[in-house]
Amino acid sequence: MKLYYAQNTRAVRIAWLLEELGLDYEIERFELGSPAMRAPAYLQIHPMGRVPVLEDGDIRLFESGAIVQYILALYGNGQLQPAVGTQEFAEYLQWLHYCEGMIMPPVNTLVVETVLLPPERRTELNVKRATKLLNQILMAVEHHMQGRAFLAGDFTAADIMTGHSVTVSRDMLKMDFSDKPNLSAYADRLLERPALQKARTL
Amino acid sequence: MKLYYAQNTRAVRIAWLLEELGLDYEIERFELGSPAMRAPAYLQIHPMGRVPVLEDGDIRLFESGAIVQYILALYGNGQLQPAVGTQEFAEYLQWLHYCEGMIMPPVNTLVVETVLLPPERRTELNVKRATKLLNQILMAVEHHMQGRAFLAGDFTAADIMTGHSVTVSRDMLKMDFSDKPNLSAYADRLLERPALQKARTL
Repeated sequence: MKLYYAQNTRAVRIAWLLEELGLDYEIERFELGSPAMRAPAYLQIHPMGRVPVLEDGDIRLFESGAIVQYILALYGNGQLQPAVGTQEFAEYLQWLHYCEGMIMPPVNTLVVETVLLPPERRTELNVKRATKLLNQILMAVEHHMQGRAFLAGDFTAADIMTGHSVTVSRDMLKMDFSDKPNLSAYADRLLERPALQKARTL
Repeated sequence: MKLYYAQNTRAVRIAWLLEELGLDYEIERFELGSPAMRAPAYLQIHPMGRVPVLEDGDIRLFESGAIVQYILALYGNGQLQPAVGTQEFAEYLQWLHYCEGMIMPPVNTLVVETVLLPPERRTELNVKRATKLLNQILMAVEHHMQGRAFLAGDFTAADIMTGHSVTVSRDMLKMDFSDKPNLSAYADRLLERPALQKARTL
């Protein structure tokens, strides 16, 4: 398998999963924002010039959640996802999708408005609205994490998706976690995993 | 099963799936924006007061993509998703996740900025940016749909997720589809399905 990767992107999720599963893969490495990601050759691979993209023989796909489910279905041997029909299976699916469905839209806004745009093109109102919304969205995870080590029973791929977006919210966007002790301990717990440490720095 | 539902929301996707599969379900119906969706009792069911939520005996979950995958895994008997290991399986997962990963963030912005906010609180720059981004994102689907009837072989749940967001983009947000003939024909094809017609008007 070949992973199109850049540090500090959703591609970290896929490298993390591959490392957790101990699977072999090669990487095609980009610097985030590099013109190579906008080159015609790469736009044939991802129409918006984003990472991650996974190639597996003749198969090529994008969307981190899709790639996670693809890898688990073909190479997971039942690891990192609860058995169908359990309570944890429903929790797993919910938190797997919560990442892009809830957390990432305001994260995207905050990355654009506080990192990517030059200061003169930023809109303070957008920062304020996205910060308030993201705080509510994270607080729902904080409440769920009361008394839990992971989102859905043992460590699963839901922790790779939503857990990654939690670490980004705290450590890249500097969201206030002082009122989110469960979530901060959870982020620390994830960052201790060797597979994530390796995936962040490929 | 019980579906918490409102017209013109992501809950339409779940009703659509249930109708396609011919499954029995009851609905708890809300009017979009109703105070009942912000009442403490409902915030116990969904922490942000959103729909859809699905209850199935003791199991309760939210996130439309998660509910779709839950229903298919438990009650789908292999319908509406390609077999694992096929080319269509990878396409299916990609387009299932493309809906919330790519299409819905600018759709959300446009709904907020052109429908929900009072005119004096709207930001024209946000409308312009989100319209441009959504157009690029839809154009990638337009190109994929060249010569295809559905996103991943036969009709699948990916058409329910990404297809629904395409119909919303065209018919609710009035995005320009004049340069997207494949996508417009695709939206028409979906809207002809009796299951979607029923799901939109419960």
